[in-house]
Amino acid sequence: MAQIPFKAKPIENPVGNALGFIKVLDDVQKAIVALPGVPSEMKVMLETPFEYLHIKEQKGFVHLFKTYGKDEVKIDEILKDIDKKTLNASPYGIDIYIWDSNDLFLKNKIKVIKERLGSLIYSEDETSMEEVVGKLLKEKGLTLSTAESSTGGLIASRIVNVAGSSAYFMGSIIAYSNQVKENILKVSKENIEKYGAVSEPVARQMAEGVKNLLKTDISLSDTGIAGPTGATPDKPLGLHYIGMGIKNKTVVEKVIFKGHRNDVRLRVSQHALNMLRLYLIK
Amino acid sequence: MAQIPFKAKPIENPVGNALGFIKVLDDVQKAIVALPGVPSEMKVMLETPFEYLHIKEQKGFVHLFKTYGKDEVKIDEILKDIDKKTLNASPYGIDIYIWDSNDLFLKNKIKVIKERLGSLIYSEDETSMEEVVGKLLKEKGLTLSTAESSTGGLIASRIVNVAGSSAYFMGSIIAYSNQVKENILKVSKENIEKYGAVSEPVARQMAEGVKNLLKTDISLSDTGIAGPTGATPDKPLGLHYIGMGIKNKTVVEKVIFKGHRNDVRLRVSQHALNMLRLYLIK
Repeated sequence: MAQIPFKAKPIENPVGNALGFIKVLDDVQKAIVALPGVPSEMKVMLETPFEYLHIKEQKGFVHLFKTYGKDEVKIDEILKDIDKKTLNASPYGIDIYIWDSNDLFLKNKIKVIKERLGSLIYSEDETSMEEVVGKLLKEKGLTLSTAESSTGGLIASRIVNVAGSSAYFMGSIIAYSNQVKENILKVSKENIEKYGAVSEPVARQMAEGVKNLLKTDISLSDTGIAGPTGATPDKPLGLHYIGMGIKNKTVVEKVIFKGHRNDVRLRVSQHALNMLRLYLIK
Repeated sequence: MAQIPFKAKPIENPVGNALGFIKVLDDVQKAIVALPGVPSEMKVMLETPFEYLHIKEQKGFVHLFKTYGKDEVKIDEILKDIDKKTLNASPYGIDIYIWDSNDLFLKNKIKVIKERLGSLIYSEDETSMEEVVGKLLKEKGLTLSTAESSTGGLIASRIVNVAGSSAYFMGSIIAYSNQVKENILKVSKENIEKYGAVSEPVARQMAEGVKNLLKTDISLSDTGIAGPTGATPDKPLGLHYIGMGIKNKTVVEKVIFKGHRNDVRLRVSQHALNMLRLYLIK
């Protein structure tokens, strides 16, 4: 379906059907390089244009910190004297890119940033939160389950994104309805009636229920109002209770995340996984 | 943290902190328009530059068909005589954009394409598969549950992406380990031993198990090998069995999807939701 422009050099695609090409423009020192949009196909085809055009890829000295726990304004304040940095905010937290033309200066910056941010840093490369948590669980030989209401399987789904997760992840109960919370997770009807489905006691019982049912070492749970509706005078949009069942106890954190429904749910899943990470690195 | 260039016109952001600006270049009929990357913030700020620069947004005559069930080569063949079209392949299926400078010609193309593609088309705008399915379930007053192994909560998580899904979605059992399949979903140990966890009988029992347990009208299930490991001589990478429990019966489809682990899982989730859609529009 693709047509290659006149006098362009085709770039072969070893992993797919889409083609690419390099078209050197006649009148200026410029070239058009077209590559497929599929990242996995593009990556393997990227070498050819660099070679063909005799351009060296500029690797430079760059370092990445992926952090969770403080917003970008606070991170910027903590690192205000560090130059050559970019902060990238997302529901996963703040990614910090720092660079320097001098490798030694960069190394020094890295050291300072690590000292200042400590356990806010969950990764120093593209490793995701679920990979970090998976590695820790594997190392410690611990098993995990989740009981999800607001996130509706998002936490489980992120965990099984990691190849090899069957070693530590047993499964999840998605208790979107109160019936499932009561009948399967054994959340008490009284708690739901007295405190509501979005409450600390319900998050606690969900975490404990799934931990018992699936017989795991650790469990995560959440219940909340992702929006756009469902808020009440005393329970604002974005309110979530996130539970973690560990040895002999259950902790519950209350968070309020603003934003669009799916962003809120991503943030909740990231917060839950980060609670687990902080527990595992203690 | 943002700085606005000299003599640039700032664009106010009514929904966030990031700023935008318009900088008209002096020497050429060009302008730089900078807007935040967050789509929800960008959208509301897009009007200002168009107005300020007296440019009319070119809407044109474009129509979108979102399809599932045939690959892009087959779709291209079916529509080979239709000009001015773009096919966009993804794990969600093939999106077809068609356009024409003449509204009447476009309307005619739309009619022809609808006749030829029929129920392959699941949406004619940006509506996602989970929204289409949600709307149908709501209309028919039916409830849904899922039992997921390979997809690990992805189907559930997509369903609850849709606001209002609590009206029809009850919950899910993510049975990533065989213990959960046996103890909670009541998949028989004999079936797992005889046919393996990735098999037609197990997908069937998972769909039936969750339908009984969560007391829903319909259920979806899946079990498969998403990769990169887990293949056996008679069970290739990407092999999945997708089950659907409906009134008095359970259907299971066998599919083999090639690709990266997470793409495969997305395809499985899309296939499962599409099975449900085809059943609901019958």
